[in-house]
Amino acid sequence: MPGRNAENAWFEGIREIFDRKIPFNQVLGLKVHSLDMDRPKIRFDMRKALVGNYIKGSLHGGVISSVIDVTGGLAAFMGLQKKLSGEPMALKLDKFRKLGTIDLRIDYLRPGIGTSFEATGYVLRTGNKVAVTRIELKNETQQLIAVGTGAYVIA
Amino acid sequence: MPGRNAENAWFEGIREIFDRKIPFNQVLGLKVHSLDMDRPKIRFDMRKALVGNYIKGSLHGGVISSVIDVTGGLAAFMGLQKKLSGEPMALKLDKFRKLGTIDLRIDYLRPGIGTSFEATGYVLRTGNKVAVTRIELKNETQQLIAVGTGAYVIA
Amino acid sequence: MPGRNAENAWFEGIREIFDRKIPFNQVLGLKVHSLDMDRPKIRFDMRKALVGNYIKGSLHGGVISSVIDVTGGLAAFMGLQKKLSGEPMALKLDKFRKLGTIDLRIDYLRPGIGTSFEATGYVLRTGNKVAVTRIELKNETQQLIAVGTGAYVIA
Amino acid sequence: MPGRNAENAWFEGIREIFDRKIPFNQVLGLKVHSLDMDRPKIRFDMRKALVGNYIKGSLHGGVISSVIDVTGGLAAFMGLQKKLSGEPMALKLDKFRKLGTIDLRIDYLRPGIGTSFEATGYVLRTGNKVAVTRIELKNETQQLIAVGTGAYVIA
Repeated sequence: MPGRNAENAWFEGIREIFDRKIPFNQVLGLKVHSLDMDRPKIRFDMRKALVGNYIKGSLHGGVISSVIDVTGGLAAFMGLQKKLSGEPMALKLDKFRKLGTIDLRIDYLRPGIGTSFEATGYVLRTGNKVAVTRIELKNETQQLIAVGTGAYVIA
Repeated sequence: MPGRNAENAWFEGIREIFDRKIPFNQVLGLKVHSLDMDRPKIRFDMRKALVGNYIKGSLHGGVISSVIDVTGGLAAFMGLQKKLSGEPMALKLDKFRKLGTIDLRIDYLRPGIGTSFEATGYVLRTGNKVAVTRIELKNETQQLIAVGTGAYVIA
Repeated sequence: MPGRNAENAWFEGIREIFDRKIPFNQVLGLKVHSLDMDRPKIRFDMRKALVGNYIKGSLHGGVISSVIDVTGGLAAFMGLQKKLSGEPMALKLDKFRKLGTIDLRIDYLRPGIGTSFEATGYVLRTGNKVAVTRIELKNETQQLIAVGTGAYVIA
Repeated sequence: MPGRNAENAWFEGIREIFDRKIPFNQVLGLKVHSLDMDRPKIRFDMRKALVGNYIKGSLHGGVISSVIDVTGGLAAFMGLQKKLSGEPMALKLDKFRKLGTIDLRIDYLRPGIGTSFEATGYVLRTGNKVAVTRIELKNETQQLIAVGTGAYVIA
């Protein structure tokens, strides 16, 4: 079992990938908010650049689908990390290489209106090759904006 | 039937909405390439900011889902324009207000590698309230990167 | 508010539609198990006729998608009944006419092995024209076999 | 390259699996109509048992999703057969064991009204582990009733 420092380094490594190394995540302003193994969370703030419906001032559907895709991928990745518990950090982080979305469904439930948003992902099933995850996107008043279901290749 | 000038003004109105008024479309660099009533097209160029997998240098899944959502919406919108043939331009353009994605499926077929990309949308069915559209995303070598199917509320 | 007898008659009317009037529901052996307004349930027993993978003896994917579609429709229908609380029974039951699936996603998580199965549906959002529902299918040991998300036209 | 007799035996083997060994395909009355490697087809006739909407007399949504699932699976299977060209028939047919639907989207476009129906499947991409297929269901007047997109595990 890794010590506190090793765990911190590993979490920092995951954050480094999702928050800073992925260029489009930076465009969206995504921040990993929780690395809970079972329900990781990603947050971002409203900004004018993220608007789709300029009449309502609501999030672009593509911002919503992007965050849902990233959060589903993070949930699949965390599910894999869990399976690799005890393995060296470098090996665990390297699994990011193999991660890819096979397909994704997004249901747009309400206009994406708010000042900040949080997406939570969880795994429905992790197999050897494919993980199926679900994702919820809420605004700061806990209104459910959109949900998603995605299949990810993990190996 | 509208004259050449009226048609130009109407096309210019649609371009104005999709290319310039929607902030996140500008972030993505989307340009309406064709306003063919049956198969409208949207184009954008690769830029570092749009990368997801920084190892492969490929498009972020969210860029792909965003473009697919916009192009499906444009196809639904054009389908509606067709039904409103003969109506005043302001009334036709105003239908953009009512346009919204209900749900969307994206299938990621190949890594989004290329220098420029083109998405084409078409309508499978237009009802009174709901349009179902399909979208294909190809790179400049005509490789099929991703496809999508979306349901849009149109009234 | 309807009295006990009125409520019984109304529940019996819904059961009549789903259990007996829909021919293919009878082929599948579906039975409305609960008419909970928020989480209606449908049950059916394993029978050889419902097998798809004859090597594993598991449910056919089409049986799974059928039950998920029916249960999602029932959840959308119950959501509508809730909105119509206080209206005459005939008017409420007549809404079945307008009910139709727009689209459906099914995620097959585990082989459909078991002696009996229960599907539970719930509404994510009910609008004026469209309801979005989710459905879970479990076997008698509470193993999650499959989940679904569907959009239904309700008016 | 197999001779005419070998090819006949192999096609007969595939038909044996899909038409006769899968119990629920028999309930639906499905018949493999074409084993074209790129666009296999499945047919079935309308029967009262397959009705969902008893007011319209149209196919049950579950019949539609079932046929779409089977046809998508057949297209994935044929895609795999193509890759295994030259291998012994027993090995090729044995791949049926590994075939499984990961997820499926169905879009219901028009009421399933008609006397007979034909579903055609084709592969969008075949990888090492996952195939993505699309399916169309038409009635005898070539009206498009429904379409689907599915991801299948093939190994």
